Amino acid sequence: MKALVTGAHGFLGRHVARGLAEAGWRVTGIGHGDWPAATQRSFGLAAWRTADITAEALAGVGDVDLIVHCAGGGSVAASLADPPADFARTVQTTAAVLDFARRQARPPRIVYPSSPAVHGASAGGVMREDKARDPISPYGLHKKMAEDLCRFHAAQYGIPVAIVRLFSVYGAGLRKQLLWDACNKIAAGDAMFAGTGDEVRDWLHIDDAVALLLVAAEKAAPACPTVDGGTGIGTANRAVLQALCDLLDRGAAPSFSGASRAGDPPRYVADIAAARRWGWEPRRALADGLGLYVRWFKEQA
Amino acid sequence: MKALVTGAHGFLGRHVARGLAEAGWRVTGIGHGDWPAATQRSFGLAAWRTADITAEALAGVGDVDLIVHCAGGGSVAASLADPPADFARTVQTTAAVLDFARRQARPPRIVYPSSPAVHGASAGGVMREDKARDPISPYGLHKKMAEDLCRFHAAQYGIPVAIVRLFSVYGAGLRKQLLWDACNKIAAGDAMFAGTGDEVRDWLHIDDAVALLLVAAEKAAPACPTVDGGTGIGTANRAVLQALCDLLDRGAAPSFSGASRAGDPPRYVADIAAARRWGWEPRRALADGLGLYVRWFKEQA
Repeated sequence: MKALVTGAHGFLGRHVARGLAEAGWRVTGIGHGDWPAATQRSFGLAAWRTADITAEALAGVGDVDLIVHCAGGGSVAASLADPPADFARTVQTTAAVLDFARRQARPPRIVYPSSPAVHGASAGGVMREDKARDPISPYGLHKKMAEDLCRFHAAQYGIPVAIVRLFSVYGAGLRKQLLWDACNKIAAGDAMFAGTGDEVRDWLHIDDAVALLLVAAEKAAPACPTVDGGTGIGTANRAVLQALCDLLDRGAAPSFSGASRAGDPPRYVADIAAARRWGWEPRRALADGLGLYVRWFKEQA
Repeated sequence: MKALVTGAHGFLGRHVARGLAEAGWRVTGIGHGDWPAATQRSFGLAAWRTADITAEALAGVGDVDLIVHCAGGGSVAASLADPPADFARTVQTTAAVLDFARRQARPPRIVYPSSPAVHGASAGGVMREDKARDPISPYGLHKKMAEDLCRFHAAQYGIPVAIVRLFSVYGAGLRKQLLWDACNKIAAGDAMFAGTGDEVRDWLHIDDAVALLLVAAEKAAPACPTVDGGTGIGTANRAVLQALCDLLDRGAAPSFSGASRAGDPPRYVADIAAARRWGWEPRRALADGLGLYVRWFKEQA
């Protein structure tokens, strides 16, 4: 059975590739990234293509049985700085992937890792998965548009698709976003952070995220089931950053600028009832995961 | 005051250009079409650029005060035959136009002619403008995605935008769709048509459509007002085709295959309460408009 992982050079994509390979799939990766063949193999990739995710590049891959479409814009901040680039990376690639699937004699299953940012300004408290969606960043808008493409192709062409809205995925090897930036700051003796510290996020360990995406591959259907991927537990940034200070053996307590970042809702917490009905359960507690993360971070020094 | 009309070679675009020129705008057209400069001028165009609607091509136009974005996929049938082409023509061009507007020091007003196809399968009876949208063709999906881009850019960047969902726009010069195809068939002695004859459409004369789009330019706002553009009166295809048979002096009555076309809902009738609140009113009755259309058609022979 052949699987294709788009954006397989990224943090999520490479771990998905590894998880699929461990489950017996022959995995091809496609996207951008100049990385050693040995590293590719260590993440389970049997083949790697450096290319934009276009109709032409996908046609070169040939028929597959499963696509996990991890390629796409990487952050709210980057999307605010360059909306057209985020549009191209998220919406255009999703259109290309879905059309590639439509053209196959037997359409592959598709798993689309989306984002709670599709909820946007309507986020508040534990979010309901069926809540009206009103994205407040180009990143969130484009993820919503990509979801709309997924649902349409699933219904119109009978392509089995599943959408998983991943919350704050983290783990050893993630060299961006809050944990990475914070570890570097704290290690440099700086414990002053943007925001209020009261922003609440739902942290999901990469191994749990990969496990959920593999379940989603089994559950993909023309009805395009859509689930939140998180733990259902919200943690304030202040608590996460205090834990990092402690783990990095710095006595300091984090302090905050008080200014919120554009496009960043105050609270993102998953409702994982639907994912649980799939038989999936998150296994890694945040305290454990942060410990593993900081151990890896220290090894990088 | 400078206006830009995308897709200005098309039936709607050229009439919009003419209407804007008559209202005192200096109009630049952009899109595809190889047409004589004299014809361009006769439709009010002060300048014409043959180009895809990309960031580069738009940057070459320079700042404008108003954009009417008429470019886009042209039909449900074409979108079913080639979804990626429809995506590029409708969604990608809209993203490019909106980003072009965002980059201007003073964003232009934008009018987006959309389609009731965004309503899709939820159409039934007179459609409510706030009805849940569930498009059933790539054409409808892509129009919905383009609308989402419009609403987001309006709200996020303060760009004044208005959306007008135009129903069945027709008039002399339209060389495609039901009236054109039917006149040619009837003139050739063939009065057998696809469908059941009971499909109901809301026919809006091109002059009324242009007048509504010009009002929309005044009403454009960051709240992105969205109105239906039609007459509020539904007419069965059977009645339209009978009128054409009569006007073409053919004694025949139209007959029907009975098979519905994919992606074609049974009923499209506008709710024009919102357009009326703008002070606009359709002026041309269908019987008059069909008379003018057939007179023009006969002149082509």
